[in-house]
Amino acid sequence: MKAVRVTGYHEKLLMDDVPVPGVTGPHDVVVKIGGAGVCRTDLHILEGQWAEKSGVALPYTIGHENAGWVHAVGSAVTNVAEGDKVILHPLVTCGLCRACRAGDDVHCENSQFPGIDTDGGYAEYLKTSARSCVKIDDSLEPAAVAALADAGLTAYHAAAKAARRLRAGDRCVLIGAGGLGHIGIQVMHALSPAELIVVDRSADAVELALSIGADSGIVADGSQVEQVLKATGGKGAEVVIDFVGEGGSTKQGLAMTRRAGDYLVVGYGENVDVPTIDLVSAEINILGNLVGSYNDLVELMALAAQQKVTLHTQQYALDDFQSAIDDLDGGRVRGRAILVP
Amino acid sequence: MKAVRVTGYHEKLLMDDVPVPGVTGPHDVVVKIGGAGVCRTDLHILEGQWAEKSGVALPYTIGHENAGWVHAVGSAVTNVAEGDKVILHPLVTCGLCRACRAGDDVHCENSQFPGIDTDGGYAEYLKTSARSCVKIDDSLEPAAVAALADAGLTAYHAAAKAARRLRAGDRCVLIGAGGLGHIGIQVMHALSPAELIVVDRSADAVELALSIGADSGIVADGSQVEQVLKATGGKGAEVVIDFVGEGGSTKQGLAMTRRAGDYLVVGYGENVDVPTIDLVSAEINILGNLVGSYNDLVELMALAAQQKVTLHTQQYALDDFQSAIDDLDGGRVRGRAILVP
Amino acid sequence: MKAVRVTGYHEKLLMDDVPVPGVTGPHDVVVKIGGAGVCRTDLHILEGQWAEKSGVALPYTIGHENAGWVHAVGSAVTNVAEGDKVILHPLVTCGLCRACRAGDDVHCENSQFPGIDTDGGYAEYLKTSARSCVKIDDSLEPAAVAALADAGLTAYHAAAKAARRLRAGDRCVLIGAGGLGHIGIQVMHALSPAELIVVDRSADAVELALSIGADSGIVADGSQVEQVLKATGGKGAEVVIDFVGEGGSTKQGLAMTRRAGDYLVVGYGENVDVPTIDLVSAEINILGNLVGSYNDLVELMALAAQQKVTLHTQQYALDDFQSAIDDLDGGRVRGRAILVP
Amino acid sequence: MKAVRVTGYHEKLLMDDVPVPGVTGPHDVVVKIGGAGVCRTDLHILEGQWAEKSGVALPYTIGHENAGWVHAVGSAVTNVAEGDKVILHPLVTCGLCRACRAGDDVHCENSQFPGIDTDGGYAEYLKTSARSCVKIDDSLEPAAVAALADAGLTAYHAAAKAARRLRAGDRCVLIGAGGLGHIGIQVMHALSPAELIVVDRSADAVELALSIGADSGIVADGSQVEQVLKATGGKGAEVVIDFVGEGGSTKQGLAMTRRAGDYLVVGYGENVDVPTIDLVSAEINILGNLVGSYNDLVELMALAAQQKVTLHTQQYALDDFQSAIDDLDGGRVRGRAILVP
Repeated sequence: MKAVRVTGYHEKLLMDDVPVPGVTGPHDVVVKIGGAGVCRTDLHILEGQWAEKSGVALPYTIGHENAGWVHAVGSAVTNVAEGDKVILHPLVTCGLCRACRAGDDVHCENSQFPGIDTDGGYAEYLKTSARSCVKIDDSLEPAAVAALADAGLTAYHAAAKAARRLRAGDRCVLIGAGGLGHIGIQVMHALSPAELIVVDRSADAVELALSIGADSGIVADGSQVEQVLKATGGKGAEVVIDFVGEGGSTKQGLAMTRRAGDYLVVGYGENVDVPTIDLVSAEINILGNLVGSYNDLVELMALAAQQKVTLHTQQYALDDFQSAIDDLDGGRVRGRAILVP
Repeated sequence: MKAVRVTGYHEKLLMDDVPVPGVTGPHDVVVKIGGAGVCRTDLHILEGQWAEKSGVALPYTIGHENAGWVHAVGSAVTNVAEGDKVILHPLVTCGLCRACRAGDDVHCENSQFPGIDTDGGYAEYLKTSARSCVKIDDSLEPAAVAALADAGLTAYHAAAKAARRLRAGDRCVLIGAGGLGHIGIQVMHALSPAELIVVDRSADAVELALSIGADSGIVADGSQVEQVLKATGGKGAEVVIDFVGEGGSTKQGLAMTRRAGDYLVVGYGENVDVPTIDLVSAEINILGNLVGSYNDLVELMALAAQQKVTLHTQQYALDDFQSAIDDLDGGRVRGRAILVP
Repeated sequence: MKAVRVTGYHEKLLMDDVPVPGVTGPHDVVVKIGGAGVCRTDLHILEGQWAEKSGVALPYTIGHENAGWVHAVGSAVTNVAEGDKVILHPLVTCGLCRACRAGDDVHCENSQFPGIDTDGGYAEYLKTSARSCVKIDDSLEPAAVAALADAGLTAYHAAAKAARRLRAGDRCVLIGAGGLGHIGIQVMHALSPAELIVVDRSADAVELALSIGADSGIVADGSQVEQVLKATGGKGAEVVIDFVGEGGSTKQGLAMTRRAGDYLVVGYGENVDVPTIDLVSAEINILGNLVGSYNDLVELMALAAQQKVTLHTQQYALDDFQSAIDDLDGGRVRGRAILVP
Repeated sequence: MKAVRVTGYHEKLLMDDVPVPGVTGPHDVVVKIGGAGVCRTDLHILEGQWAEKSGVALPYTIGHENAGWVHAVGSAVTNVAEGDKVILHPLVTCGLCRACRAGDDVHCENSQFPGIDTDGGYAEYLKTSARSCVKIDDSLEPAAVAALADAGLTAYHAAAKAARRLRAGDRCVLIGAGGLGHIGIQVMHALSPAELIVVDRSADAVELALSIGADSGIVADGSQVEQVLKATGGKGAEVVIDFVGEGGSTKQGLAMTRRAGDYLVVGYGENVDVPTIDLVSAEINILGNLVGSYNDLVELMALAAQQKVTLHTQQYALDDFQSAIDDLDGGRVRGRAILVP
């Protein structure tokens, strides 16, 4: 089958012909790929940023946001069957460690991450585990939802966590209305009655935000903290979700957070650098956010089936993978680039 | 001032002329009534059902769902000022007992209940406490929101409690789409992405429910349990909220509740009568629900200001109180009857 | 191997010679039994009470409270290895349904229950799943902890749930200080600073309760509700855990529950029969309780290793199974009867 | 009456004769001081560190950890009466803002802080509010518990928050076993079955910690992170509570925190400076902690009455205030210095 492989860092991806993966273990599931998201992380992988962390042996097949149809299942698989339309949770988890047993499978002590540390989905077929397969509604197409598998799931996880503490009349600031942020806005709008204030450097992004659920938008021109404080009676918002995490957004985000409020870090890049006295005297929480759990993905797919979360995609044939990469790198992708084998 | 008084049980209410109440304590607030809801409980009071429970001395002024404008305030009042538009939490609470200190003021150990055990709002003015006053948005009118003070607040409280455990993809059954239920539906729709299934004996009520947020409706014709089970893959709903509480609805409600689910009792009348083995083996919870807290009312007013919760009202001049009572008793009120002085 | 089998209802158990179970599936684990608890449910099984519910085909091996040593493991088992000392969660769960994925494996949609609906532990060996095996501390012996697998786990689950809402200064009533209750008392004492009030018909049981963590004890002589109210300033306890569930304990338990309090049903037998108005006006919750989850069992084993929960056992050789059954039936077992192969 | 006053920054405190405060407002309570804690914050006040923040006008009476007997009450006070033995919550709160109405009175929008921004308790009498008075058990003496009013309450608040997420078998690291830490250890021991690992620079403090509930102790010699990781299988603790907040403890504390764990900041001084990628990839939370609420203080007093929390005090006559200050400054106070008028 065709597969797009990392053959060296600081080198271009290469299309290769490799064997279709087969079922070997009892919980294996082989999925025929219907769509594979092209993510900024893929660019970072090529730059070698993940080389040491993942420890992956080259060459391998890249692509960690995948959806498609079940092609073959192992002997112990009971939750999906051949032909089922599925989206794949990005992690292959063990199901036996304490985290998995608590429903917090993202913190599995023995997980694999296809596309990062083992073969991923820029290919015709992918091998994963029964534990990673989420059946999707008939109304959804793999290529349309693939990018919800990782970027979308991360945004869902943070927004759903925040929504659980928000009440009607509260305010939630969302910093960044790009890839993750515009999913986060839709999720918050579906899960919470809180007033949503979106901050982004781009007036276009702010415009988009207003059309998908934001109650107000602020173009980040240096006065965004001041504007949020003004909009919240000088007190800041009960929750601030930072999808950016660099360029000063952490300091600004904390400054926008109300006493006893939560500041959620989703995007990353810079350091959070804050005096302990500020955290203590205002009793603010800084909450880290990773990708969501399996059940989070099930819930996100419920929202997608209800058309409460939609994603703008730009589809490319698998053969055109280089164009997708180039377009992403060049800022020419609106929404999310998807490879379709 | 004019005030409509209970002068004896099993007798008609009488309009009387009584002194305007004055500020005597430091936290007193006198409110000029803008609207007073006429509630089925008022009929029960006249039938003497509350005589012993409330211990109120006759004659007294009835009316426990009130909104209006602040007319005068005591020396220690800081949260409202003369002229403010307010809705009144139905209880006057002490602020000093453990429940009040925990935000759970509904369980105040020293509360009063104007309209039930002290003078209420079928009058031109009402004396209450600073702790009962919730300022409302400029866009809201007292007569339009008064009935949210008690009936609406009860529905909000139960729905908000339930919403905190519901996730996208879950199902919530609401039994009864009448006075409380139709508020509950709007609240659930605003707070939760769960699929809302409404059950009511009246096809009209079901129709209304579908127009204000229900995803599906079932006319209760004896097969409602079966229909809910069918709609939920034979498993029942994660949450069932019973706004009826009589005529068999408790048994039906429990039968509609999924394993590990919550059945919330709001309406009352009959007994809950269930084998312990059923509660244990399915691990079902039965949750009692009273009126909401002060902060619940603040949140409900936020939803009202955002037009996410609206109430159909039928307004009567205070002088026409008997027509309002008669219409309610005769089933001729659509939505909620409101007296406007 | 030796196995004690149900060969017919209303008949005595029979010892038989059956093949040692072997590993066939990838997650199978065969355990050499070190101790099997003899439970009142086993008597009920023989009386045919579970025949229809379990649908088990006779003959089969009884015994659902098991601990021992891992004898053999399937190809996909990673959490235990041959020789490990383990206690067995009573259910064999799928790991793939939504409940399992949420950590709530007790509500697994595809579970088996060895000793109830498939072969259990009154035998030399038992086949279970990797998902049911909890490794225990070196200091613990299988025969000493086996009865914690089901009875103890149920008590732990209810007490741990209740402990999460109790605060210092709160009161918790525990009705019944027998098999489950005396575990529940030890667990509450370890998890919560609440004042523990134990109610039991037997003065001896009350005495025992005081020695293992209860702060006060009441011999149920008909005045127990009155005594609890007196001990709680007339208000009742924040939490009441009912390990009895029959003989009037549900009505008494609810009468002992404070406004906004929780009444937890663990024991069963009679109906809960309560006016909806009482649940609503006092806003009381009735919470059903089943056995605990896998992680609950891990936590209970941590308490056992810390010697915070201990169990009095009366051990019998497997060959003497009939004596154990007879002693239990005749009320001659102090603590818990355990069969040791 | 005698009162010890701040008359200028960088100057010594002066004893003065001032009028006994009288009841003027309806919720006023005048308390005869039985004990006033001498706190490091008092030294900082004299150094002028709080001058701008508090905006207090000099001269004023210092002392913010107070307990005593009710001497006089305002007309609206219902929760305490003359002669009651009380400890005083450090804040005088409004009871009307949203935070107060939610039970989160520490975040009151209109609070005063006697001893910091208005007259405090280094005096014979103090004026406070009904909302600040917590009645204490007959068995407790004001001079013995006064220091629990602020330092103890802060430790209680953080420990109780952490305890709510800890389960049996979890590990909790407490950094710093000094003034706050040694209360925190006792509270955690009373509220949670988690294994408590205490880290302190002083071998004596570690020794003390082991005698009051710690399961193990580590003398901070530079290898403390390594030792905690070793003691937790390389994973870190589910919860780390940092009572120090300077000298590198924040970086160390975060390094001791397990994936998905909570790091609670209580002590302050340095900056938390952490890469966002670390917070995100391990999904760690940093939780700020201020003093506890009124209800927290009620709960702490319940623990004190049960002798689960005790405080070593060194008492001084009010006239000897300078010795107490000097001893504290010179490190000669074991436990807590208390002024007794």
